[in-house]
This record gives sequence, C-alpha cells and structure tokens, in this order.
Amino acid sequence: MIIIVKQQHDEKQLNNLVKWIKNQGLGVDLSVGAHSTILGVVGDTSKVDIDLVRSLDIVENVKRIQEPFKCANRKFHPEDTIVDINGIKVGGDNFQIIAGPCSVETEKQIVEVAKAVKKAGATLLRGGAFKPRTSPYSFQGLRETGIDLLLKAKEETGMPIVTEIMSVRHIDLFKDVDVVQIGARDMQNFELLKEVGKMNKVVLLKRGMCNTIEEWLMSAEYIMSEGTKDIILCERGIRTFEPYTRNTLDLSAIPLLKELTHLPVVVDPSHASGLSRLVRPLSLASVGSGADGLMIEVHNDPKNALCDGAQSIKPDEFEQIVEHINVMLPLCGKKEIV
Amino acid sequence: MIIIVKQQHDEKQLNNLVKWIKNQGLGVDLSVGAHSTILGVVGDTSKVDIDLVRSLDIVENVKRIQEPFKCANRKFHPEDTIVDINGIKVGGDNFQIIAGPCSVETEKQIVEVAKAVKKAGATLLRGGAFKPRTSPYSFQGLRETGIDLLLKAKEETGMPIVTEIMSVRHIDLFKDVDVVQIGARDMQNFELLKEVGKMNKVVLLKRGMCNTIEEWLMSAEYIMSEGTKDIILCERGIRTFEPYTRNTLDLSAIPLLKELTHLPVVVDPSHASGLSRLVRPLSLASVGSGADGLMIEVHNDPKNALCDGAQSIKPDEFEQIVEHINVMLPLCGKKEIV
Amino acid sequence: MIIIVKQQHDEKQLNNLVKWIKNQGLGVDLSVGAHSTILGVVGDTSKVDIDLVRSLDIVENVKRIQEPFKCANRKFHPEDTIVDINGIKVGGDNFQIIAGPCSVETEKQIVEVAKAVKKAGATLLRGGAFKPRTSPYSFQGLRETGIDLLLKAKEETGMPIVTEIMSVRHIDLFKDVDVVQIGARDMQNFELLKEVGKMNKVVLLKRGMCNTIEEWLMSAEYIMSEGTKDIILCERGIRTFEPYTRNTLDLSAIPLLKELTHLPVVVDPSHASGLSRLVRPLSLASVGSGADGLMIEVHNDPKNALCDGAQSIKPDEFEQIVEHINVMLPLCGKKEIV
Amino acid sequence: MIIIVKQQHDEKQLNNLVKWIKNQGLGVDLSVGAHSTILGVVGDTSKVDIDLVRSLDIVENVKRIQEPFKCANRKFHPEDTIVDINGIKVGGDNFQIIAGPCSVETEKQIVEVAKAVKKAGATLLRGGAFKPRTSPYSFQGLRETGIDLLLKAKEETGMPIVTEIMSVRHIDLFKDVDVVQIGARDMQNFELLKEVGKMNKVVLLKRGMCNTIEEWLMSAEYIMSEGTKDIILCERGIRTFEPYTRNTLDLSAIPLLKELTHLPVVVDPSHASGLSRLVRPLSLASVGSGADGLMIEVHNDPKNALCDGAQSIKPDEFEQIVEHINVMLPLCGKKEIV
Repeated sequence: MIIIVKQQHDEKQLNNLVKWIKNQGLGVDLSVGAHSTILGVVGDTSKVDIDLVRSLDIVENVKRIQEPFKCANRKFHPEDTIVDINGIKVGGDNFQIIAGPCSVETEKQIVEVAKAVKKAGATLLRGGAFKPRTSPYSFQGLRETGIDLLLKAKEETGMPIVTEIMSVRHIDLFKDVDVVQIGARDMQNFELLKEVGKMNKVVLLKRGMCNTIEEWLMSAEYIMSEGTKDIILCERGIRTFEPYTRNTLDLSAIPLLKELTHLPVVVDPSHASGLSRLVRPLSLASVGSGADGLMIEVHNDPKNALCDGAQSIKPDEFEQIVEHINVMLPLCGKKEIV
Repeated sequence: MIIIVKQQHDEKQLNNLVKWIKNQGLGVDLSVGAHSTILGVVGDTSKVDIDLVRSLDIVENVKRIQEPFKCANRKFHPEDTIVDINGIKVGGDNFQIIAGPCSVETEKQIVEVAKAVKKAGATLLRGGAFKPRTSPYSFQGLRETGIDLLLKAKEETGMPIVTEIMSVRHIDLFKDVDVVQIGARDMQNFELLKEVGKMNKVVLLKRGMCNTIEEWLMSAEYIMSEGTKDIILCERGIRTFEPYTRNTLDLSAIPLLKELTHLPVVVDPSHASGLSRLVRPLSLASVGSGADGLMIEVHNDPKNALCDGAQSIKPDEFEQIVEHINVMLPLCGKKEIV
Repeated sequence: MIIIVKQQHDEKQLNNLVKWIKNQGLGVDLSVGAHSTILGVVGDTSKVDIDLVRSLDIVENVKRIQEPFKCANRKFHPEDTIVDINGIKVGGDNFQIIAGPCSVETEKQIVEVAKAVKKAGATLLRGGAFKPRTSPYSFQGLRETGIDLLLKAKEETGMPIVTEIMSVRHIDLFKDVDVVQIGARDMQNFELLKEVGKMNKVVLLKRGMCNTIEEWLMSAEYIMSEGTKDIILCERGIRTFEPYTRNTLDLSAIPLLKELTHLPVVVDPSHASGLSRLVRPLSLASVGSGADGLMIEVHNDPKNALCDGAQSIKPDEFEQIVEHINVMLPLCGKKEIV
Repeated sequence: MIIIVKQQHDEKQLNNLVKWIKNQGLGVDLSVGAHSTILGVVGDTSKVDIDLVRSLDIVENVKRIQEPFKCANRKFHPEDTIVDINGIKVGGDNFQIIAGPCSVETEKQIVEVAKAVKKAGATLLRGGAFKPRTSPYSFQGLRETGIDLLLKAKEETGMPIVTEIMSVRHIDLFKDVDVVQIGARDMQNFELLKEVGKMNKVVLLKRGMCNTIEEWLMSAEYIMSEGTKDIILCERGIRTFEPYTRNTLDLSAIPLLKELTHLPVVVDPSHASGLSRLVRPLSLASVGSGADGLMIEVHNDPKNALCDGAQSIKPDEFEQIVEHINVMLPLCGKKEIV
C-alpha cells in the first residue's frame, strides 16, 4: 500500500500515522520527494481501512499494491481449482454446459427439457425455483415446489442440479441441491454469502450487474472464508449506457480472471443480452474467450414460458450450438464434450 | 404498451398474440403502416411480461407507455406523502436531517454524537449496527449490541433512530427501531423487501449503486405491496466511470422523483463521494435540488473511527452546514429547521 | 413515433401539436385511454425533433418506433454490403485481418511488420501516422512522414493501407490512403465526418468509447449522406466502471449490428483491453460473435515502441492466432483465410 | 510513479527497465517485498508512457502518483485564475451567468433574448451558430450567419458572446467572438484543441460526456500548452445507465476541480438533463456545489425553437432563478450578481 502525503503536512500528524500503521503489525518505508512524501506500507495490508487512511487531513491519495483477496488469489494457489459435482468436473481442461429453463413450471416441462439438453451434451441442469423479479406483480417462481420438480428431473436423468437461493430462510430447502446459485442481485448480500459459505456445497456465484472484478472476487472470498472451497464464477453481463441489450457481456473478464484467480469461470449468454437470437454468437464468443463452461437457457415452448422467454432457445438450436463448440474446444485448451 | 410487429410476419402468429393479450383482460388497437404494424395495448399492462413479448418471432420491439409502479405512482396519489416518525415529519414542506456516525462503537461515542447533532439541528439519529463491507476481513459492525447502544442514545436524546437491516434473520432485533434502512446493496434483495414490508415500520430505501429510478420505485412497490405506506427514498450516488469519487451523486433524480412519486426523498452526500470535504458543497447542492432532507455522517473522532472515517465530518462543521441550509430552505419551498 | 399526452392537457395545445405534425407531411392517429392520450405519428419521422416534442407542456413522453438511420439501415438494403479494397473484400462470407503497429516509426519497422503480418494472413496494413493522445506531452505520431512510410510499405508488400485522419486540414495527405480511419474520439466530429464522406474512399469508422449503437450508425449516416457507400464499422470497446481493462469490448454489438445494418463490422481487440495478453482470447471471441474481421496491433519490438506497446503482440503470436481463427471461420459462415 | 514488478521476474529485464527509466532523467527507488518488488520512480514522470511500462512482461501493475497535468494544476499555481472578458470576471469570488438560446435563428430573436437575459442578470450571451447534431438530417445551425447575428446582439447590448467552434476551418470566423466554446463531443478533438490554443482567446471547455476529470484537465492542458491561459471549464453531465435524463449532472466534480485546478468552472444544467423543468433545481444545486457560474438556455418561444427546445426556459422563469441564486451566493463565498 502506497500512501501519498500532502506537501504541506504537519510532522506530528505524519508521525501519528506511521505509528498507527506500525501498531497494525506493518512496516513503513518513507520516501521524501519534491512534491510529495510517500509511505510504502509493507506486510499484509488486506485489513487496513483504505477509506479511513484516505480521509486523513495530511493524506493526498492511497493506492493498494496487493489484491485484497487471498483464498481466491492465484498467487497463493497457482493451480486451477477443479470442482467435482458428482463426477462432473468444472475447471482445468474440462468444459461443461449448464442448461435448462429459466423457470421450473411443471414436472413434464422440466423432465422433458432435462432429457433434451442432456442428449445434446449438457451435463448440469439449471432451472429457477425462486425467481428474482423487478416487479412484485411478476411471477416469483414455484419456490419449494420448483425444487421438488428439479429433484425429480435429477432422478430421471442423473443430472446434478443448479438453482438459485434468495434468502437465508430457504437454506434447508437446498440440502439436496448440488450447486447453490447466488444471483447477480445478491452478489453483495453478505449475510447470505456467509450462510451459504457454511453449507458445504458447490456455489455458483454470478457477477453483480454493476460490480468490478475485484468486488466479485471479494464476494467469493466471503464464501471461502467460511470454509467453502468450490466456487464457480459466472459472468452474466454488466450494466452500461447501451440500451439495445439488457446488459453488456464482459468477455475480457474471462482471461483476466484466469490470471487473478484459480477458480473456474463460466458465462451466461442468455441473461446478458436478454435476446435469444444472441445466444449462439455469444456462446461461441465465450468459448473463444477461454471460459470453463456455459450456462444457457433452453425451453421447450418459449412462447408460453412464464418468464424470461425472450432469452430461451429451443433444444434443436441448443444441439447445434454444442456441436460447434466442440470444434472450438481444442483451440482453447479444452477437451471435447463427449 | 406499444408492440411493433415485424414487416414480414405470419398472420396466424399475429392473431395468436392478439388473442393472448385479450385473454389477460386487455384491449388491442391495431394500426398498419408502411414499414411496421403496431399494436396499442390498452388497460392495466403492469402485469404483462414485456420480455416475453419481445422474444416472439414476429415482434420487432415493445415499448411501455405506463409506468409499471402503482402504489408509489404520483398519478394515482397526487398529494405528497408525509411520513410521521414520533412527530418528526418527512415530506411536504418539511426538511429533516438524519445524522450520526457511520458505525456505532461505544455508548459514550453514540450518545455524544447524538447530543451534538441534535443541538445542531438534526432530528433523526443514524448509526450502523450491521455494516455491509466489501471485504470479509473488515469490521462488520457491533450487530445486536450496536442496536442496544442506539436505543440508549434514543433514550438519552429522544431522537428516533435509523439503522440498516441486512438479513431477514434480524427482523426481531429491529422491533424498537424507528426507521428500518434498506442499504444500496440490498435494494433488490426482494425477499428482504417483502419481509420488511410486513414490519409496519417506516422504511428508508437507498438507491442501488447501479439501479435506475424506475427499478428503485419498483423496489418501493415491493415494500408497499406488503402493506407499508411510509417509505423515504434515499439517493446516495450511482456508479460511473469516474474514479475520483466513489460514486456520482445523481441530483437530477430528485426533481424527477418529485414528478414520478409522492414519496419523500432525502440525499446522503457522505456515501456518494466517500470524501468528507465534499459533504458541505454536496449538502447545499442537495437542498437546492429540492430534497426533503439529508443523511449525513458525523463523527466525534474521525481518525479513530473503525470504518468509513473518510466520509465523516465533525460536529462543528455539521453545525455550520445546518446554518447555511436554513438560509436556503425558503427558496426551495421548505420551512426552516428550528 | 408515439407521443404520450398528459392526462390533464389543454385541448387547444393538443390541436396545435397535431397541426404542427401534419404540417411536416406526417399523419396522426389519436387514441384516448383512461390515463393518457396517445398520438401515433405515421410517415418518415426521421426529421421530427424528438427533444422539442418532449419539451412541450402537454407531452408526457415520446418514443420513436422507426430507427432514425436510413442509408445504413438493413430494412432498406437487405443484402450485406461487401466493400472492395483493391480486390480485398470485406463483408459477406469474407473475413479479413487488418494488422500492423500502433505507430509508424521507421521505414524498416513498418516494412518488416508488414511483411510479417502479410505472411501470417493479414490482408490490410494498419499503422498510426497521426496519433490521438490524451496528453499533449506524449508522442503525437510521425504525421506526414508516417503516411509516406506506410505508402512505402504498401509498395513493398502490395497491402492496402488503413490509417487514421484527425483533422480536415489533412485530407489532401490521405489521397493515396486506401482506407481512411475515423477514430473513437472523432466518431461525433461531425464536420470531419462530412468532409471525409466527400473523399470517395472506404472509411473505417470506430465506435466512440461512450456511444450507443444507434449513435454509431447515425455517424455512418453522416458519411453516407455525403455519397460514400463503403463503410466498415469497428467495435473497440466502451467505457464502463471496470478498472482492470481500459475498455469493455462489447461483443453483443456484433450480432445486433448484423440485424440493424448491412455494413460490415470488424473488432479491434488490442485497443479494447489495452493488454496484449488479452488479444488472443478476445480475437477468438470476436470471430465467434460473427465479426467480419479483426484489427490487431502487431509490433516487432514492443518494448521499444514509442506508444501503446502494451497492446501489441509479436508476429509469431499473431501467426498462431490466425491459424486458430481459420479453424473457427467455417462455423461462423465465413470462408477460411488463404 | 510506482511500478510493481512480478514476483518471478528476470533480473536482466529488471535492470533494463531501471536503465530505461534513468535514461529519461528520472530517479528509481527499489524496494523488495515478500510478494512483489516495487520501483518508485522519482522526478517529472508526466512524459513516461504508462501503457508501455504496463505492457512489459515483468510488470504486474503501474500507478501514477503525480497528476499528469501541469499548467492546469493548482499545485503549481495555487491562486484562482480569474478570467477577464471585457471586464466581466469569471473565477475567484465572482459568479457569472451565460445565457441565451440554444440556436441563433433570427436577428430579432437573438437581440430580444439578449436584452431579456441581460436585464435579469446574465452577463455573457450564448447562442449556437454551428450546431453538433446526432443526425445529419437535423438542423445544423445558421453557421457564418449565426455568428454575424450574435455580433449584432453584442453591439446592441454590450454583452460579450460565447459560441461553439466545430472545425479548424472556421477559426477565422471566430476572430470577433469573445469566448470560443469547445463542445463535449470535441473535448478530445486534439487537433482542434491545439489550433484553438493558438487563437489567444478565452476558451470555454465542456466536459466530454464520457470523460474523466483527469482527461478533461489534460484537454485543458492541450490548449494551455499552446499559450492560452484563460480557460473556463464547463460541467454538462456525463453518460450513465439512467434513461430518465439525457445525462447525469456530476456536481461532485465541482468541489473536486476546485482542489485540482486553479481554473474557473461553470455548470450547464440545460444540456445535462435535457428537460427545461429541471433547470431551476439543478441551477440552485450547482450554486450550492461551489460553481463559478452557470450556462443556461433561455428562449423567447421554446415551442418554435428549431432545436433543443426541451432544454430552454423562458425569460421570466430565468429572472426568478437569478433572484434565488443571489440569496445563495454569500453562503458559497461569492459576491451577489448586481
């Protein structure tokens, strides 16, 4: 951490600051220049309150040198984390596709979609039971019943299931769920992160629509600091000024995450754009960017879907996308999907 | 709601769409132009799934004409809502200042700050007991104890208290809290909104750092649809590309909200910038924009604050700001602070 | 165009508005609902001043139905435009790579890079002669001399050249340049757009770092309205809140542009991220998204480059990227690069 | 400048880097920590290419300590610059209002508006002769004729005139213009900045809609490095995700600019929101934020304005705003408008 002290500063205040830093078990290097005095703070600075330091009268600016995340940091864990979900491996040279409908609606629907996407190459089944909706007047998901139906589809197909949790009150309902999803709007729901971190489950952590990569990894850190090791990050688009798409998919984040963290990262091209006809090009683009997998909405009857139909593609289109992905995977250091 | 149908469309699909809309109890006006066919949907369209309609093959675009919020909509409730908190009135021609430390730390600290800000003109006491922090390694607030200390300060000064709730698990702890705050990161924590909506309390709803005004009012709608009438909106800055400030305070939102909703709106200039030396100019700017009040961090000893010290000003500076605000209030249709 | 009139409106003002619209040769449909009166404006509304209409006392909101661009609109020109640059075809099922150094520095440098990228599969040579730099103290390019050196490299290799124009004063210097580039910062330099539109050259139009897709196509419209038909759009990243990358590459824009316009679109992965190690993954991602080509910075000695070295890759890495792109092209409806 | 070198680095490359820095006349402090090696670069680092350094294989990150602007930097010029325009002083404890129509239309119109705003307290007359419009089909201003009409209004009222330049081709037309305005879209039109910098005129430099404060000051630096001393900065809103307003006025920028630079700064509340009914609250807010002046669109007949009518207020409303501003000015360290 570098602290830039104002040119006109009170020596006593500077000494107090240096003392305060040293009291936190850190070292301080002082370097006096023509226009500023610089303090180099050495040691584990992840606990230093950067905002507090910035507020001091004598401080002009503060810059962090070390990343504030540790468990998620590749520097301290150079090998890729490979998450194992009932034998389905995410990370390393594996590529997995999570597919399924936006919302679980009926047993027939979820079982049919599950069978169709499994046949096409998907290995994990997604489906919304609890649905975060902007409007209280919109369909909020089948909730408990939705989870039961997902478990039936798992029984029928053997596919592990991925579904979103929205409240600490529902933790018990998720005991048979294989992958607990934290949605974009809950990425900084810190109390939920802490409780999910104690569940001893694989967690799929979506990026908040307005969160930086660093904040995202800090949210992974919340979960990991409670004992969870297996986190899958999921890029789903960020909010920008562009109105044509609901969100702007940030594919530069994928290779950057590969440098910063050992955790696997998948991309959700369905939610990013909100337009089903963009799913195919954005899926191929995601593979090209180096992602460890995709999360795609597939629906057997988009027109009658109760929610987010605009994002869903049909099983036959999905099958074709998977075929094309298979051609690309070897270029990206990944094994083909069998 | 206006649905623009593609030039080349299947007549049968168009008829199906018209039928589907009518089945929802809505009327449809059809208008055929040279390059597009337009459906005007008449009636209460707030429950129509705009994303689903947009997804249909024959649809080029959909535009909403009516705002999707109702309880919060000034069209259906033209007079200002005036929230009454133990006699302290927020809204209409009243102007209130909520002040206090970022975090509650000790009984001495919170009582001292409460007395100082009350003397200077603040009418409501704020203080964080549960603290949302980006890092799991940062101080997370005194939690239950923090609420007890706030209640002691209320006892000593008579000031109603405002403090943030972060989890549905803590609802019982808030039974004596006067104003329950929903923080920016929880603005779309819908399960929390619903449960807080049932508490029968005044709610202070902060704007999410990346949320539109419409989404903000939809979150108010979540709370109101559970029976709560008294909501105070709080603008606290949005995230932009500018790195000098933590957030960009959106003061244009204030006069816009005054048109769209009857709910009172206050501004938090402390969190917006993250710099205490900007609190004074941004407070005066907020008054000028037409806000119903301010929420300001005041601390008796910023240097030793456990968190967010950079945003806090000292009591004497606060007193001076209040004096200047008093000169401005009559220009803005507000009564002076006594 | 849909004009939503306020519930409480003056009938005389409404009649004036209807008359004013009709005077512009447009038709008006009036539809009266419970909470609003709606005017549907029929005809060529591209010249109606939407801001002026919005400002009227009786108007609540205005929404455009038709896109405001015409020459660039696929609706009025359904087939892909295929730009021909001395036999090099851009658009349709063709895929072209524009490569070269950020800045032209010496004859040796530009000729060597040109030969290396041509050998690897690039068909167009880029190189900056006039350089837009944030700081007046940074190297501003070799200017006239830079163009001379590019022309020498063209002579040696036969590759058509692409280089940026920054001022109407330099138009004569560009008479032998094959493709005139408009940079991101000049995307809305309307006086430059008009003069370049009269040059009768192929224009490569970069997206402004904070411009919407619609604004981008309106800038193409400026050039086209002066007689130019051959425009290549170039996505180079937009500005967001994410600090890790200089810009966020918006690959969703590619399939959207393919719907909205008939003009070819290429991607510049070098400028988007500002990090050369992201060029490879973002190049593959761009191909997957459906782009008609790439614009890549390649340098023979990045460390000593006078500018933007961080974005440049070396010829051998470039060669490998081209090989991988060739595997992907048939999946994306494109012919392989020979 | 702080350069963070990767943990695993080649010693030879590090030595090369140190040598390269020293060759630029700078000093280097080396500090070796557990996880990184840090180089502190001492001296005038404004000419070091930060992107080039970041690109080196051994470099993890680079952070600038000193601001890259000098002429505009308050550190090297602590007193406020007070710009004198024919006796009208901008900066220091002065507050000036620039008012006038969006576009100059007729002699009668501009002279009438000029008289009305002068009577109400405006001291500088604005009016668009060259108009930057998103669409080539929109009215582009009266151009040369517009400047002639402005000069007539100056003759009649004695008010100095402010008008926008859009091309280096028009420099001669601006020889009698008092304040040359650089519009938001041209803030980084560097060739224009350089030529305007040589005109020896007062320049009003608007902030680009997606530019940081630092980039804005670097553009001022371009003009100043050509010899111009008198620049007035003008905040006019930045682009965010919020669709209700055209731009989000960034009033936090005002007190920040007062710290960073000695140049005066005014606010344009008309263009920021694009809604005339927001002009009053945003004007008072701007005064509260500490601005040195306002730039307001006033029109005698908004309905028939040829452009941007939505932003214009009428003279009587303007007069009332000026009265209220006068009450606020002493709170903000400013003299009242006479």
